[in-house]
Amino acid sequence: MIRKTRLFTPGPTPLLPAAQFAMAAADIHHRTPEFRALYQRVLAQLKEFVGSKNDVILMSCSGTGAMEASVSNLTSPGDRVLVLTAGKFGERWTALAKAYGCQVDVVEAPYGKTFSLDEVRAALKLETRAVYMQATETSTGVRHDVKGVADLLKSAKSEAVLVVDAITGLGTTHIDMDAWGVDVLVGGSQKAVMIPPGLAYLAVSDKAWERMEATYNPRYYFDLRKERKNAQKGESAYTPAVALIAGLGAALDYIAAQGGGDLATGRAQLVENAETISAMMRAAVSALGFKLFAPESPAAAVTAVLPPEGMDSGVIVKELKSRFAAVITNGQGEMKGHLFRIAHLGYFDYLDTISLIGALEQVIYATPALAAALPGFEFGKALVAAQKVFAGRKPNQAALDAAEQLAVAAK
Amino acid sequence: MIRKTRLFTPGPTPLLPAAQFAMAAADIHHRTPEFRALYQRVLAQLKEFVGSKNDVILMSCSGTGAMEASVSNLTSPGDRVLVLTAGKFGERWTALAKAYGCQVDVVEAPYGKTFSLDEVRAALKLETRAVYMQATETSTGVRHDVKGVADLLKSAKSEAVLVVDAITGLGTTHIDMDAWGVDVLVGGSQKAVMIPPGLAYLAVSDKAWERMEATYNPRYYFDLRKERKNAQKGESAYTPAVALIAGLGAALDYIAAQGGGDLATGRAQLVENAETISAMMRAAVSALGFKLFAPESPAAAVTAVLPPEGMDSGVIVKELKSRFAAVITNGQGEMKGHLFRIAHLGYFDYLDTISLIGALEQVIYATPALAAALPGFEFGKALVAAQKVFAGRKPNQAALDAAEQLAVAAK
Repeated sequence: MIRKTRLFTPGPTPLLPAAQFAMAAADIHHRTPEFRALYQRVLAQLKEFVGSKNDVILMSCSGTGAMEASVSNLTSPGDRVLVLTAGKFGERWTALAKAYGCQVDVVEAPYGKTFSLDEVRAALKLETRAVYMQATETSTGVRHDVKGVADLLKSAKSEAVLVVDAITGLGTTHIDMDAWGVDVLVGGSQKAVMIPPGLAYLAVSDKAWERMEATYNPRYYFDLRKERKNAQKGESAYTPAVALIAGLGAALDYIAAQGGGDLATGRAQLVENAETISAMMRAAVSALGFKLFAPESPAAAVTAVLPPEGMDSGVIVKELKSRFAAVITNGQGEMKGHLFRIAHLGYFDYLDTISLIGALEQVIYATPALAAALPGFEFGKALVAAQKVFAGRKPNQAALDAAEQLAVAAK
Repeated sequence: MIRKTRLFTPGPTPLLPAAQFAMAAADIHHRTPEFRALYQRVLAQLKEFVGSKNDVILMSCSGTGAMEASVSNLTSPGDRVLVLTAGKFGERWTALAKAYGCQVDVVEAPYGKTFSLDEVRAALKLETRAVYMQATETSTGVRHDVKGVADLLKSAKSEAVLVVDAITGLGTTHIDMDAWGVDVLVGGSQKAVMIPPGLAYLAVSDKAWERMEATYNPRYYFDLRKERKNAQKGESAYTPAVALIAGLGAALDYIAAQGGGDLATGRAQLVENAETISAMMRAAVSALGFKLFAPESPAAAVTAVLPPEGMDSGVIVKELKSRFAAVITNGQGEMKGHLFRIAHLGYFDYLDTISLIGALEQVIYATPALAAALPGFEFGKALVAAQKVFAGRKPNQAALDAAEQLAVAAK
């Protein structure tokens, strides 16, 4: 039987063909007018995509590199910082801040939950210099309340910069960086922007740029001020991942086209798309009798699902791969075996989603232990639930209106 | 919403990525040792794929070009030929034979049916020089009885050469050219071999080669004997479609890998794949209340379906395209509006098939006239029928055994 390999993973995500073609064609030297034109265009597009007046810095590294830049550029050894964590990527903020000698306060929610704003308020100190959080926690499929945290910092008149890892959040959840008062927003390439890993980007507020004048943690490759200065000339400080940048330009063209020519609207359409297909997936797995790992505040980027009690989630990951070449992800780290995750961010459509649900039904049917653990299993249970969600879904007009405001405000 | 354009059409069919990469890399001149090595390898692979001891000739043209070659090389003006037709492609044989001055006898079955062997027997004359037919008729989704016709010619001790257009048949239905006594078998590139249009190939028996010594219809670009002579030196007579040939090599590598390294087994696996997913589709559309256009002898290559009475099939084609970017085909010529066709040949898998069935349900739900014309419509009807077919399907061991014999015999 033919089995096409398909990624249903929360990064890397499926590649946009137009971006693949642009990457294949990117035979450009990075110190030429040709590249400078490309680079300036992509930086301008990214600004529109983020929906911010702030400068956007593009770096050739994974998302973790940009997270590191948000620590090394914004802190000095001994600075007090607050990390809000509820999963593997929250813990990465803690590890980074410690690596750069910060005193780290932590508000921690159990995996699968989001933290309470009351706890954040209690943990915030006068001397807190920075707050680090995720928009969505990829390891657990939870959406955090970025606006809630931003409002809290404002009402507390905190001097802390708010740094948000939106690597899976951008293009899957609404974020208005300027209006809310987010100081650094971090994005990555292998996510909603539909290209391979290798690029990260940061939108940086004036307050954050000012902060960098005084901080003195060591940085060189990730020196944001140096990159900003070079970007003004249309160049990167060091050799950039040229092909990925060409691919990113093509992907942002595609996203703009989705938004009728406007990138902020295109991003809102991406969010809408992820909301729709994640709602299909949640309905499907719930109908089968699976429990959602994050039922209260589910991210649209990725759905995390618990295996039936006593079963290893790896069985489902493995069977989908071996029977259908469909690649989903297991839990990360100590969550391995305890959940499986299916992505919806970026270049996924209805047909991708309904087909994976069909394959999941086939895996349950063909795996007696799974069928036994999900009483009342029959073909169609998940598919019909998903079909009804898709058919009943109305576009979220409020979100589209917000995107329009964002587009106007950012101009 | 994201909508990925997907072809569910019976040629062109979805492209194999490995073939796309090979085409992109095919920067080769055609009068070099490098090309000769590629060409000889691909011709040898095609021979294995066809499963014949006969030489295979590869031509840079569409399938119709190879059909023309089968007429212009094998007939002389005034020759009596018999065409077996039950659709648009059968009619093309008639048009070709007339264009080359043949006297054409026709056995015609209504669209959606296959012809009766009794009628073929009655129409066969002592002076019939060639019999032209399809293995499967793409315009109606019907499978014809190639072995039945071959047996009939043998038992009638006919001197006619048997020419079979297997453009959609190769890789979707079992054909044993040498054992059955087929003289010319025609294939095309944009079909089960998963590459774009532009190449056609013919396996030619000794009897057919001998026939060409005496025939005198005009031919130049399509002169098969000239191509054969050049092929023995590893070249084509005229400038070949180099990139497509490189792509074909990569696709045949993939098909061989599907067959555990053997192309005849790989072809049998392709047939098995098409049989499985076409059975899913037939069950799905029947469960919805649609009537199959060719219920008696359905081809695995393509499923032709009647729209509800009084409705234009174009509605379904259009809605699948506009809502989901899923491309199926309408009827051809005067059948336009009267049926729609969904392909299964080549690079299609379970996920492709189940997803299109889901999209078809959504189209019915969203189109009141369609839902009204298919009483009792509800979500899941088609999906569950297809799920059960897939789950219950056992590999056809007889077909796989036959492929093994074919592989052994051709060596």
